[in-house]
Order: sequence, then structure tokens, then C-alpha cells
Amino acid sequence: MKKTLTLFLGLLTGVASAQTADSVMIRNIYNEALGNGKSYEWLRQLTKQIGPRLSGSAGAQKAVDWSKQVMEQQGFDRVFLQEVMVPYWVRGKKEEAYIHIGSQKRTVPIAALGGSVATSPKGVEAGIIEVKNFPELRALGAEKVKGKIVFFNRPMDPTKINTFEAYGGAVDQRANGATEAAKLGAVGAIVRSMTNVHDDNPHTGGLRYGTGVALIPSAAISTNGADLLSQSLKENPNLTFYFKQNCETLADAKSYNVVGEIKGSEKPDEIIVVGGHLDSWDLAEGAHDDGAGCVQSIEVLRIMKTLGLKPKRTIRAVMFMNEENGLRGGVKYADLAKANNEKHIAAVESDNGGFTPRGFGIVGTPQQREKVMPWKPLLAPYGLAEIGPGSGGADIGPLAQLGTVLFGFKPDSQRYFDYHHTPVDNFETISQRELEMGAASMAALVYLLDQHGL
Amino acid sequence: MKKTLTLFLGLLTGVASAQTADSVMIRNIYNEALGNGKSYEWLRQLTKQIGPRLSGSAGAQKAVDWSKQVMEQQGFDRVFLQEVMVPYWVRGKKEEAYIHIGSQKRTVPIAALGGSVATSPKGVEAGIIEVKNFPELRALGAEKVKGKIVFFNRPMDPTKINTFEAYGGAVDQRANGATEAAKLGAVGAIVRSMTNVHDDNPHTGGLRYGTGVALIPSAAISTNGADLLSQSLKENPNLTFYFKQNCETLADAKSYNVVGEIKGSEKPDEIIVVGGHLDSWDLAEGAHDDGAGCVQSIEVLRIMKTLGLKPKRTIRAVMFMNEENGLRGGVKYADLAKANNEKHIAAVESDNGGFTPRGFGIVGTPQQREKVMPWKPLLAPYGLAEIGPGSGGADIGPLAQLGTVLFGFKPDSQRYFDYHHTPVDNFETISQRELEMGAASMAALVYLLDQHGL
Repeated sequence: MKKTLTLFLGLLTGVASAQTADSVMIRNIYNEALGNGKSYEWLRQLTKQIGPRLSGSAGAQKAVDWSKQVMEQQGFDRVFLQEVMVPYWVRGKKEEAYIHIGSQKRTVPIAALGGSVATSPKGVEAGIIEVKNFPELRALGAEKVKGKIVFFNRPMDPTKINTFEAYGGAVDQRANGATEAAKLGAVGAIVRSMTNVHDDNPHTGGLRYGTGVALIPSAAISTNGADLLSQSLKENPNLTFYFKQNCETLADAKSYNVVGEIKGSEKPDEIIVVGGHLDSWDLAEGAHDDGAGCVQSIEVLRIMKTLGLKPKRTIRAVMFMNEENGLRGGVKYADLAKANNEKHIAAVESDNGGFTPRGFGIVGTPQQREKVMPWKPLLAPYGLAEIGPGSGGADIGPLAQLGTVLFGFKPDSQRYFDYHHTPVDNFETISQRELEMGAASMAALVYLLDQHGL
Repeated sequence: MKKTLTLFLGLLTGVASAQTADSVMIRNIYNEALGNGKSYEWLRQLTKQIGPRLSGSAGAQKAVDWSKQVMEQQGFDRVFLQEVMVPYWVRGKKEEAYIHIGSQKRTVPIAALGGSVATSPKGVEAGIIEVKNFPELRALGAEKVKGKIVFFNRPMDPTKINTFEAYGGAVDQRANGATEAAKLGAVGAIVRSMTNVHDDNPHTGGLRYGTGVALIPSAAISTNGADLLSQSLKENPNLTFYFKQNCETLADAKSYNVVGEIKGSEKPDEIIVVGGHLDSWDLAEGAHDDGAGCVQSIEVLRIMKTLGLKPKRTIRAVMFMNEENGLRGGVKYADLAKANNEKHIAAVESDNGGFTPRGFGIVGTPQQREKVMPWKPLLAPYGLAEIGPGSGGADIGPLAQLGTVLFGFKPDSQRYFDYHHTPVDNFETISQRELEMGAASMAALVYLLDQHGL
């Protein structure tokens, strides 16, 4: 009995001292990120010296070179590229659009959706029909839609606390609106921008054309523009809408994922990935989406190295290419991992902006999630209260087929769709402390994953 | 036994259905704040139409008139003023300062501290000594300090997760630096701005002169300016520093707290206060500090009224006057409450900026705090995870002597000191959703306090 008790107390003490050691190390991680962090300066370089970096563009290639160089300068054990062919869509000359009522033309801000076809060089002008969703569109039928432009104007639901939920509830209009409209003979699709803010910034983003359906041009209109158009339609149902866009899909281009690695000291064959995506839309610097995730991921490895933390497992920072309009980099990474028989125990992605940390979403079995629960008290003092089932991240998604547990870094979501895919997703919208807190949060999780496995 | 069991189950069901009713009502509160909120538009009026409103100024009086009118238009049961005499300090002509090395003069941005005396009309120029804290200053002694300007240059600690802790650890330099320097014969005091950001904005704020000590002029210098000065001193210890400021304390002025009230239906004599302070520093529009708290407080009452929530207790929105440089409004409010034998069961203040909500700090007995704990699961879905002992708020502080339980609304602190007391605390730095989430959080707490008491 005494022996059992001693053993029990010994175990308890062991658990307690492991917790204490973890707690001290996590404190050190935050001190390093907040006191000597490099992520903000790196983000300045990526956004201000390189800027937009849509897949296939010169900016994307510069970003590949830059991130490779930064990780090499940090002296990580290995830095390497993974070649991947990516879609190459270009916007061309800036779009034009106006509401045409009698002799009056009121200009509204639009941006072609990524992957859209161009209008004819003269643009397209037609009557325009406002709908809120696909059932409403289908109820109108081909008779009323044929030859018209369809205007999808269902706003994101402002009462959703997590704005990604509201986005999820509205983005079908952007992704599939052109196809649904084309099925009924429409000649164009205009989509209300995905944001709760009322302003003049159109929000681009990818669309998907269905097979066997005409490819019609589609663009996002700013929320102020959408409100004006909706109001104008109430007053003048027979007004026409004009838009012209000059975008084009070129032949696939060669590009790369960029990977930096610190080799594990005890279990080098077990890999933990932390990453973001290096490509961005073409309208802005891609600061929140997803420059932030990239520099935070490099910072995780820098912090571990600087603190002399020799990980048991192999830790990789991965800058994925082509999340925005293809996900080719994420798919390629998982394909290579499978082909090379690599064991990825966990992957952490930051692709929800450089905002103040809230927690992590987990994609894994209940047993795997259970393993993470004892870490909650270690992370709570840093504002990481929301740890539980959730989504991982688009780029790491394909790793799920290999049994990898996925973690999505969850920053606060309130401001994300103020900037997402607009001309204002620039460095100036980044708070240094929020960015650094995010990097530290990811480093703390990677540290715990490395120490305790899954 | 059966009877007891039935009673027990009945109680359980009662508790569960009360929780459900609360949960539904809190959801309605958030829907109203996020779907039809008025706080953002009110803040636009307060900041853009009125702007700076330091105690005693014309702006402060306009803000009194404006908030009275807004609450009257909302049809609250009663809107009234509480007269209070306030200090009236004016900055006068913009300050000038430069680092003087040989024939070179390098201009640096400064702002006189609130309550400071002016320099002589020609300004003051003297040698300058950098210290990090008061013990270091005292160790230098009068011999080295006499006739000099003292430069207090201890930064806020960037590794503190809550930036208010870092502020608390540095602000003695601003509050008491001039007095401590004057005790040793200094002729001026220059204080590093209270922020983690490196930029060109000086952060003003109140100072306190000690009795029986010479009043010497004191100003805040921007962090970039402080870094330049410190570096220049390393290279040229004998450089001189020049500054000129033109501020003045005038005779006390008449001003007001503004109070809006919804009368309680069951216990009208029990009062719950929700408030912020109406005055702001003179350098900017006072958007985060504390226009946000004011419009959020009015919004709490508007939401209750709009949802047809007839509170059991009396709910008051209080716009306190003179938090920044006197706290006269807060003291007056508590004095009147005492004189009128009013029973204030709880007071909630929002004075930490219009950022995304994190929780509430509570000042009360352990028993009172215990009463709040069952509400945590009701508030957690809205990001309000941090509910526990903490600070209330300066304006409601004097109510503690009446046994009132104090609640300080806790928004995320990472960006607060980017703007605090600077020329950039303007409407443009406010996120509409974050502001509205704050108002809803406060309304949810006030609702629970009203329903369940303390």
C-alpha cells in the first residue's frame, strides 16, 4: 500500500514537474516572440518589398526566393523547394462597371473573381436581376434570366459571432453563382462582396465553373455598390448594368512550396508541420492572407532554435503555394509525404489572419483531441481558451488522409473580412503584438506536440 | 422521499429552464447589437462631429448636450445631469522640442503632460540625464541633477501579455517623474511615451505634482524620439535638450455627468450602473478612450428597451465627466449616491477601448464573485472566457465604498496602447464589430445582474 502510494505520489510529482517545465518553456517562448520577435520585420519585407503574389506571378516567384533565403539565413538544418505546377490567372487591365439609368451612369467598384473569363473587349451590358440565393434564382427560371446579368446579393449574416461561419453561409454565391446563372442563360454574374463592412472595396476570390455549362464573366461588387444597385433596382427595375473585365487564364506555371526543417533529435522520422500559404490575391500585399501565417511559421522554428530547444521530432515550416486558386501546393505536399512514406503526426496552419489569438481548432479522433486537453491550462494564460473540434486549414487538409492530426490556429475573427481579398489587405492593418502573439501561440503548441506526441 | 425527489427534480428543471431562458435572451441581445446596433453611428457622431473633449472645453460641453439628447431620443424613463466642477487645463500652442548637438538641432515630437506647467515663453534648454527609474535617479543625487532635464526612459515591458500590466509597470515615470526630478533640482522632465509601438506619436496623460516641491514642466516624447535621444546621449553625453510648452491650468469649470435611466419594475430602488467617461484628452477624438465606453453604455439600455426587456432593477447608463485629469465626475456620482441613500448593487465600466471582448474583471467579495461563476457557460460562446478577480474602472471605483460590486469590461488589450492618449485615437481605428460585440457583452452581463441580483 505504502509502495503504491509512493508510486502514485511519484507519478503525481512527475506530472506536476513536467507541467512546470512546460509552463516555464512556454513563458520563454512568449518572451522571445514579444521581446525579440522577427515576424513583423519579415512581414514588412514580404508585403512591402514583394507585395502581391498570385500563383504564377513574378511576385510569387520572388516570395519563394525570399522565404528560402530567410530560412537559410536562420540556419535551419535543411531548406528545400517542392516543385508544383500552378494555375496562372491574370486580371489584366482594371475592371469597369456602372449602373445605367436613362442617360445616367453611376460607376461602382468591382473586381473580377479569380478564374473568371473576361467579358468581350467592349464589355457586357444587360438588364440585371437581383436574387438572394440559388432556389430564388431557379424559381425565376430561364425565361426571366436568359440574356440578363444575375446579381447575387445575400449579405453575410452579421449575427454570427465567428465571421468565418457567416462567410461559409454566403460564399456559395461567389463560388458557384456564375455557373448557376449560366445554367439559365445569364450573360454575367455580379456578387456582393463577402464582408460585414459597408465600404467601397470589392472582395475578389475564386469561383468554380461547372462542366458542360457556358463560362460567363463574374465579378464581386463592393457592399456600398451592392446596396446602391439594389436600391436603384427597386426604383428602376429596368435599369441596365455594364461591366468590362480583361482577365485571362494562361498556361500553368512552375512554382514551389518552400520548406524549412529542424531535424528531430530522438524521433526524426516523426514530422510536425507548421505552415501558411505564400501566394496571395493580386489586389493587395496579402498581409493577413496569408503573409502573417508564413512569417509566423518561420518564427516558430526561429524561436525554437534561439531558445536552444532541440526538438525530439522533426519540425517543418512550410510555405504552401497556390492556396487561393487551386490548392496545388497543399495537395503536392501531401502527395510527396505519401510517396516518401513520411510520418506526419501533426500539422498546424495559420490562415485566418494575424489577429489576437483565441485558440486552435482540431481535426482528429476524439482520442487524439483528448490528448490535447491537459494542455489547456498551460495555454489559457495567453488567451488561448478556444481549443476543441474545429477546422484545420486548406493547405494541410490533404494530410488528413495520412492520419495527420490537423490544428487550425484561431485568431479573433472580427476584423478578418474587413480586409480579406481586397485592395486593403496591407501591412498597415497588422498589429505587431497581435502577429507576435500568434507566432508564440503556434510555437507553444508545436513545442507541446513535440514534447508529448499525439 | 418521492416528494423530495420530485422537488429536487423540479428545482433542477427550474434551474435548467432559467439557464435556457437566459441563453435565449443573451443570443437576442447579440443579434440586436450586431444586426441593428447603434453604437458605431453614435461613436461617429461623438468623434467626428464633436471630437476632442477635455474637461472644461467647449467639446466636453457639446458632448454633454449630445449624450443627453441621444438618450432622450431613445425615450429612456429619465435623463438627467449631475453638476460637477472640473479642472480646466489647456495645452495652448503646440509644443516644440529638439536635441541640440553642436550646431545641429534635431526636432522630436513631444506633448505636454496633462496638468503640467508651461516652460518660460522662450522654452527651457539644459543638459539632459537619462534614467530608467526613481532609485537610479536618486542615486545620482542633487549634485548631478540640479539645473538639468531628467529623461525617464524605461519602456513598457513587451513580454507582459496584458498590456495594462506593462502600463502599470511604467506609468509612475509619467505620473510622478516631474516631482521626483524637481526634488533634486531638475528644471524639466521628459518621459518616454507609454506604448510598445515604435512610432512618432507622443502619448500625453496626467501627472501629479507633489506638495512642497517646485512645479517643473514635463512632457511625453514619442518612442522613436526617445530612442533617438537615448542613442544621441550615448554618443554625446553633453548635448542639450530644448523644449517649449504653453499649457495652463485655468479656474475650475462647471460640467456634468450625464445619466440615462430605465426604471426597475420590481426593485426600482436597486440600481445597476453601466458607464464610461465622456471626457477625452485634447489630442484626438477619444474614440477608444473612452467614446467607445460611452456609446456602448447607451447601447446597453437601447438594446434592453428595443427587446422589450423590462428590467426588475433600475438600470442607468452614466457618462462620467473628468476621468482623465481629476476623476471629479466619478467621485461626484458616488457622493450623490451616498447622499441620496441609493442602493447600487453593481456597476460595469468600459474604459479599456472598443476592442474584441475577452471577459470581465470583478471587484467584490469571494461570495459575490462566486455568484457570477454559474454565468460563465452562458457568456463563453461569445468569447468572454476571462471572468474573475480584476479591476473595475476608475469612474466606478468610488462606488466601492457603498458596497457596490464593480465589473470592468475586458476587451483584448494588444492594440490599446497603440492609440491611448495620442493624436491617433480616432474613429478610423475602431472596428464596428468589435465595438458592437463589446456593447452586447456589457448588455448580457447587465441582463444577468438584473435577473439574478448579486
